[in-house]
Amino acid sequence: MTFNCLTLFPEQFSGFMQTGLAARAVQAGLVRVELINFREHTTDRHRRVDDYPFSGGPGMLLMPQPLFDCFADLESRETGRVRRIYMSPAGKPFSQADARRLAAEYDTIDILCGRYEGVDQRVIDTFIDEEISIGDYVLTGGELPAMVLMDACMRLLPGFVGNDDSLRAESMSDGLLEYPQYTRPSNFRGQPVPEVLLSGDHARIEKWKHQQALLRTLERRPDLLAGRHLSREDQELIEKIKEAGT
Amino acid sequence: MTFNCLTLFPEQFSGFMQTGLAARAVQAGLVRVELINFREHTTDRHRRVDDYPFSGGPGMLLMPQPLFDCFADLESRETGRVRRIYMSPAGKPFSQADARRLAAEYDTIDILCGRYEGVDQRVIDTFIDEEISIGDYVLTGGELPAMVLMDACMRLLPGFVGNDDSLRAESMSDGLLEYPQYTRPSNFRGQPVPEVLLSGDHARIEKWKHQQALLRTLERRPDLLAGRHLSREDQELIEKIKEAGT
Repeated sequence: MTFNCLTLFPEQFSGFMQTGLAARAVQAGLVRVELINFREHTTDRHRRVDDYPFSGGPGMLLMPQPLFDCFADLESRETGRVRRIYMSPAGKPFSQADARRLAAEYDTIDILCGRYEGVDQRVIDTFIDEEISIGDYVLTGGELPAMVLMDACMRLLPGFVGNDDSLRAESMSDGLLEYPQYTRPSNFRGQPVPEVLLSGDHARIEKWKHQQALLRTLERRPDLLAGRHLSREDQELIEKIKEAGT
Repeated sequence: MTFNCLTLFPEQFSGFMQTGLAARAVQAGLVRVELINFREHTTDRHRRVDDYPFSGGPGMLLMPQPLFDCFADLESRETGRVRRIYMSPAGKPFSQADARRLAAEYDTIDILCGRYEGVDQRVIDTFIDEEISIGDYVLTGGELPAMVLMDACMRLLPGFVGNDDSLRAESMSDGLLEYPQYTRPSNFRGQPVPEVLLSGDHARIEKWKHQQALLRTLERRPDLLAGRHLSREDQELIEKIKEAGT
């Protein structure tokens, strides 16, 4: 899988590229990451890449010429299934389902990292397949979002995360938040782990884990329960909690 | 403002720390960032920081001792308003309102970057003020989320982003997604900008911008419109679009 990141600040990726997941994925030959500074494509004699917006207002926009020429250059050498993504606060919210889809369906993903106030809409209309937002907050650029997207996709590549169970069990994967977790010692400086976890009673432990996950989701992310089919037991538990809370 | 990042992989922050916003904020004396490898606090003779979960299941958990001692060390030297955050997929969703609140209300923010399957719950119960998730996707660790949180907060610090208008006008700040934007040339390789933007008629331009923002939000993020008071004009526009779509 190849990721081409179009960025004015390739050096922001250095920590990501040199350590951890990305470094191992590249070394294992599972992933190629190319950092492309699209300033190299400007024909402006001052090497400018931004200009004032027609609509007035503050800030500068990335202008069309360098990005048109950069994408055209990529197009001329890309093969296979290609997807072009613009990381933008106005995009659709990125989800684990998107990570799975992108990791499974494409050979090459081009990621345009925004900067300044945004990018000329003609670039988006001409080249971009999807606009993705990693969340409802404002960042200085699309570089961190691009790394977030790559990290989420890379760890799903077959043969990468050693323990496939681990992929399955984690938060968000089954639609509930993860239950509280404990490791040794069973009593740390006067704080014991919940007794059930030491009981050896697997059925009881599984029930406790599920209930804790449900409770936590109800408390922190009731939106995740909205469209979900709940067992009668779960419904009763939720009713009990709501009564206790009033 | 001080950020203390508790991480097993401080080198992952190198691109973030050496360039862009963080580098400038540190240089301007607005921000201090300390990267703390909590492995330094382990008393295990093999320098282990993780262990198996009591609840069974895959993966390893960060064990209590190194983090208890690391936080105790921080506590002994921190002054002012301190907030301790754990970046976790099971946390509350991070929003621009959180970024504003954290940037305004605290002198020091400690950020625990999770790894492996999670962290022993006793660490969270004892030290953590809030658990924050940057989105509904799974990453290999809390390092990228910590950088996202710092970036969102740093750019809001007074005296930092040059143009305060720019902070106000951007996506998400007024609850609608940003309208499409255009810069010169007015016709680029056969693609003209929308005629209204060249009209010089400011009232018409403002109306177009608002309508485009509304349309885009309706299409991509109807959830943002759910709790919003809409003018009669906006309501009529939305009705028209819905009719046209059926």
